[in-house]
Amino acid sequence: MINVGIVGATGYAGEELIDILLRHPDVRITDVSAKIEKPQEISDIFPKFKGRINLICAQPDIKKIRGACDLVFLALPHTVSMEMAPKLLKSGKKVIDLSADYRLKDTKIYEKFYNTRHKDKPNLTKAVYGLPEIYRAKIKNARLIANPGCYPTVSILALAPLVAFDLFETGPIIIDAKSGVTGAGRKITEGFLFSEINEDFKAYKVNAHQHSPEINQELSKLAGKKISVTFVPHLLPLNRGILATIYVKKSQKSKVKSQNLTALYKKFYKKEPFVRIRDEEDFPRIKDVVGTNFCDIGIKESADSVIIIAAIDNLLKGAAGQAVENMNIMYKFPEYTALL
Amino acid sequence: MINVGIVGATGYAGEELIDILLRHPDVRITDVSAKIEKPQEISDIFPKFKGRINLICAQPDIKKIRGACDLVFLALPHTVSMEMAPKLLKSGKKVIDLSADYRLKDTKIYEKFYNTRHKDKPNLTKAVYGLPEIYRAKIKNARLIANPGCYPTVSILALAPLVAFDLFETGPIIIDAKSGVTGAGRKITEGFLFSEINEDFKAYKVNAHQHSPEINQELSKLAGKKISVTFVPHLLPLNRGILATIYVKKSQKSKVKSQNLTALYKKFYKKEPFVRIRDEEDFPRIKDVVGTNFCDIGIKESADSVIIIAAIDNLLKGAAGQAVENMNIMYKFPEYTALL
Amino acid sequence: MINVGIVGATGYAGEELIDILLRHPDVRITDVSAKIEKPQEISDIFPKFKGRINLICAQPDIKKIRGACDLVFLALPHTVSMEMAPKLLKSGKKVIDLSADYRLKDTKIYEKFYNTRHKDKPNLTKAVYGLPEIYRAKIKNARLIANPGCYPTVSILALAPLVAFDLFETGPIIIDAKSGVTGAGRKITEGFLFSEINEDFKAYKVNAHQHSPEINQELSKLAGKKISVTFVPHLLPLNRGILATIYVKKSQKSKVKSQNLTALYKKFYKKEPFVRIRDEEDFPRIKDVVGTNFCDIGIKESADSVIIIAAIDNLLKGAAGQAVENMNIMYKFPEYTALL
Amino acid sequence: MINVGIVGATGYAGEELIDILLRHPDVRITDVSAKIEKPQEISDIFPKFKGRINLICAQPDIKKIRGACDLVFLALPHTVSMEMAPKLLKSGKKVIDLSADYRLKDTKIYEKFYNTRHKDKPNLTKAVYGLPEIYRAKIKNARLIANPGCYPTVSILALAPLVAFDLFETGPIIIDAKSGVTGAGRKITEGFLFSEINEDFKAYKVNAHQHSPEINQELSKLAGKKISVTFVPHLLPLNRGILATIYVKKSQKSKVKSQNLTALYKKFYKKEPFVRIRDEEDFPRIKDVVGTNFCDIGIKESADSVIIIAAIDNLLKGAAGQAVENMNIMYKFPEYTALL
Repeated sequence: MINVGIVGATGYAGEELIDILLRHPDVRITDVSAKIEKPQEISDIFPKFKGRINLICAQPDIKKIRGACDLVFLALPHTVSMEMAPKLLKSGKKVIDLSADYRLKDTKIYEKFYNTRHKDKPNLTKAVYGLPEIYRAKIKNARLIANPGCYPTVSILALAPLVAFDLFETGPIIIDAKSGVTGAGRKITEGFLFSEINEDFKAYKVNAHQHSPEINQELSKLAGKKISVTFVPHLLPLNRGILATIYVKKSQKSKVKSQNLTALYKKFYKKEPFVRIRDEEDFPRIKDVVGTNFCDIGIKESADSVIIIAAIDNLLKGAAGQAVENMNIMYKFPEYTALL
Repeated sequence: MINVGIVGATGYAGEELIDILLRHPDVRITDVSAKIEKPQEISDIFPKFKGRINLICAQPDIKKIRGACDLVFLALPHTVSMEMAPKLLKSGKKVIDLSADYRLKDTKIYEKFYNTRHKDKPNLTKAVYGLPEIYRAKIKNARLIANPGCYPTVSILALAPLVAFDLFETGPIIIDAKSGVTGAGRKITEGFLFSEINEDFKAYKVNAHQHSPEINQELSKLAGKKISVTFVPHLLPLNRGILATIYVKKSQKSKVKSQNLTALYKKFYKKEPFVRIRDEEDFPRIKDVVGTNFCDIGIKESADSVIIIAAIDNLLKGAAGQAVENMNIMYKFPEYTALL
Repeated sequence: MINVGIVGATGYAGEELIDILLRHPDVRITDVSAKIEKPQEISDIFPKFKGRINLICAQPDIKKIRGACDLVFLALPHTVSMEMAPKLLKSGKKVIDLSADYRLKDTKIYEKFYNTRHKDKPNLTKAVYGLPEIYRAKIKNARLIANPGCYPTVSILALAPLVAFDLFETGPIIIDAKSGVTGAGRKITEGFLFSEINEDFKAYKVNAHQHSPEINQELSKLAGKKISVTFVPHLLPLNRGILATIYVKKSQKSKVKSQNLTALYKKFYKKEPFVRIRDEEDFPRIKDVVGTNFCDIGIKESADSVIIIAAIDNLLKGAAGQAVENMNIMYKFPEYTALL
Repeated sequence: MINVGIVGATGYAGEELIDILLRHPDVRITDVSAKIEKPQEISDIFPKFKGRINLICAQPDIKKIRGACDLVFLALPHTVSMEMAPKLLKSGKKVIDLSADYRLKDTKIYEKFYNTRHKDKPNLTKAVYGLPEIYRAKIKNARLIANPGCYPTVSILALAPLVAFDLFETGPIIIDAKSGVTGAGRKITEGFLFSEINEDFKAYKVNAHQHSPEINQELSKLAGKKISVTFVPHLLPLNRGILATIYVKKSQKSKVKSQNLTALYKKFYKKEPFVRIRDEEDFPRIKDVVGTNFCDIGIKESADSVIIIAAIDNLLKGAAGQAVENMNIMYKFPEYTALL
């Protein structure tokens, strides 16, 4: 049994972490905190938890957290995490950070996309990118996890086999991604009002989204050469789920036959508990993964190009679910605990 | 051809007024203003109007409005209207106020429900309650219209014949009302975020809503005795439309036979261009009235009680549409101009 | 470990049963069947279950079900259950029937509301109405459970304390109920198309719904006198959840003081794992209960009347969740197993 | 004043045609028909038209239509139109066909994508593709209009300037399109049930949709060489609107500078009443065009590629609106009549 704390408990990812961890047999939630005006029962903030948890949510108090927790989830806005993480790590706590602060290894790129100086380069070097399908071995012994972004999770998983085996043409990989509203966090701005989003659909940050460099960093590592994707995110009028439609030109040199790409993906992810490859030309939809920690992937090949469609729940495999998956790996709990 | 101004042009009712008035053959929009940080093309604020209107939206400037307009629509938050209306009326302009500031004749009740002192009692006395079905004659010559609230419009129209003919038991009239999200205006608060409202439904201000006294005032006038309704509004996860389900106990003294109430309603509203009475046990739904200025009403009677279901578009018959209807009456344009 | 079968596995309640039972540590799903054209992997029908269950869904085969299951959930349309239940009961299987076939003790009323003759009166007598809060003792030893309807569950729980203590005026109890779309099952009719329901809201079967007699039967039993509610259901444009707004006139003879009704409800349901009473004037909304097996209830009293607002997830406490709760009671598993 | 008939009046496009034509000062609707079990008031089918139109909708009766109408809109399923159109044309009526039957000039392609033999080749030759921005001159004198599909309308308008000026690289043009549900017509199948689509999003007919050859045909004509697009449609959980995100590789030989493409588009569509080009990097969203007949287009260029985002209302510019636009051109009514 381990004791965990959640900083940023009032956001969508925080709420989801509570929901998952209340079902986890080996975990006790011992501290919940958030930027909040005055302390309040967490079950008054989220009445759905009434009768299930008795904790006061207050401003994060490092000393209290240190005393109460073995591991801390930071479900904080970008740039806030890197102020808190070092203080927890220093006192021996393990940290799973759901923000972007420890994901980009190149601080210049971080500073360009997040408009702020990086304040914790020492820990950035040690942070492990928490995508179990790629970094499971490192996650086991990590003390600081940079939990991947939602768009990067679905994009990297959808492209990893293709990239790892060098089956694509150098040239644009186009990722046309569509996300539910919770992907942006609980932002109180006019753009996220119900009447602004309901019955509407739009692209945003067209090929300028801060998740692009994260996708590029990881795909480039896998490929062993520089990859730069074209990434256009869109906002869906629904609560949760991401579907990415990906267009790739096949390598002319590739020896992999047309009918084999699906088979290759199935083999690549054979032992993965949370990646499901569909049969050829069978594609996932958002409802197949909402409420689950799965990433579902479907593929259509033609002679010279490939269309890949992949889906995740942005709050689970794209945030809180993957964070708990990382925790399970770190503590040698079965990887799927509380996630099925 | 008359020149009109819209103050509060960036809210939902303001947007709707622009939409209607652009189709009105006898009206020219000559001024649009709103509480806005810096002046901006109104078609940049609402790109759907691009190519259709060329006006800068800026902070309201009384002098400019006086120079440019014959009539001014005030689509302002409650309590702001009563500061602006007197200045416009004084210089001979006609005013149609969509706020609650001139609706409640009893300032004590106003002050209780809107938490502010009433600042313009002289004009309050002269203001005409802009429900054409009841006050058409007065509207013709009015200089200040208090445009009714959305819930009061549908509630009063649904109950007027019953109340006017004294066919109900003294005792509770229960109005269980359900409204789309635009009914509350473009409020930027957590409660109106997409993810808070989508896939949710709730009651709010249970029997404590500020529209209750407005309904009571008008029904009491019609009845010639004090009426106090039980009014519970609910928030629907959709953009526009109100449906009210109303439960009334029939008067035991009533001589109107069971099968006659629908007939009586049809007769009562016979000449009304915007009230449609359904046949017995045929009920309107929200989609029958959305995008229209109609109020549709259906009735089911039993021996001792009546269920009335009525629907309007909260932004049209419940706000901007009725405001234009009032303007049409004031200027002797055909009442339905730009509203069909 | 018990073996269970699900007949009607392709409907919404069937899908939900699979979802819950896959998380249940003491249950093995051994048979899934449905009215289906040709046998198909259940995980092809519901791709979200891929990798989690390996069963072929085929037409129900009584012999096969008898061989494979200890208990059978019948998630069938009304009138189909009473043909299958006797065959299973005869061979010693336990049955939890989610249809209406065994709920109404008076077959004349059943026949009026369901337009068909009742074909299994012997088992109707023995069937236990599966509302644990009222019938837990009987459920323990039952072999046939009539799992309550969704509207009756929320209505009876919301009114039981009031009725049991005779605190209401004889006269109308008004239940204005609003349900998400899954409440009606997976009916392929024009009325349930996306574009017919999205951005719409309507009443249906106004005071003529087949759940009225079920509510009346159970409240009358509790009251020890005949109760007849006014019940108007409405269709919400959302997937799941019911909210009922209930209006009751307080008994003039009642000695219970205004401030005490909430306290009385809290006491009444003190030991119940799935009923949560809110503090005075704090009301539940649909999102507080969606995805849970809870029924949340809030109360507002005035001198002579009471407004009660109650919410459940129609597929959980209103169907599959309560069915599993009943199973847990029958097999002495902790009542909340797989339901938190 | 002309007399028009609508065949297929009960579908989404038919409903929309009625709505538009009731506002048209030069048109009288004289016949409405549809595949319908028994004759019914059209305002009973669509209660929103109550009080506005008094016509019985019955099975189409060619003789009656010939007697009552100058022009007939065929809002029929594909393959049904080509049986009816010849009969109307023979008796001198003008026909605007909203189906696909007269769009594809190559009957072999038609027969492949619509799985049926083409039955009216003589009229196919004479039919004019009703995209006013390209074929206005021919539309003026046409007697049979093949009203374009919704996806082709938005795709062709978004690509026409690029293609006409040969500014793109031969190679894939990727059209990632997202449509509201009404785009598919009022199909009563499980896939279009509310609970199947609400809170979901999916791709369908991945690079195999019947609108692909229509897009290819028209772009190839414009380019003067064979063009074959990659086209992946997706289904949005909303009623109306299409947004297409288009990815094109710029021609290396192109002399048009990076900053000029938006300017070139603005010039190309300068006189068009229903195409609006946004400023560089300003993109339309669905709500900018819903309820209007506009096609809005925004462009983002980089050194070697272009992203174009375009939006229309699938029922207006994508169907009924464009049909009325074509009628206005044919009868020399101002092109925007009843469309603003």
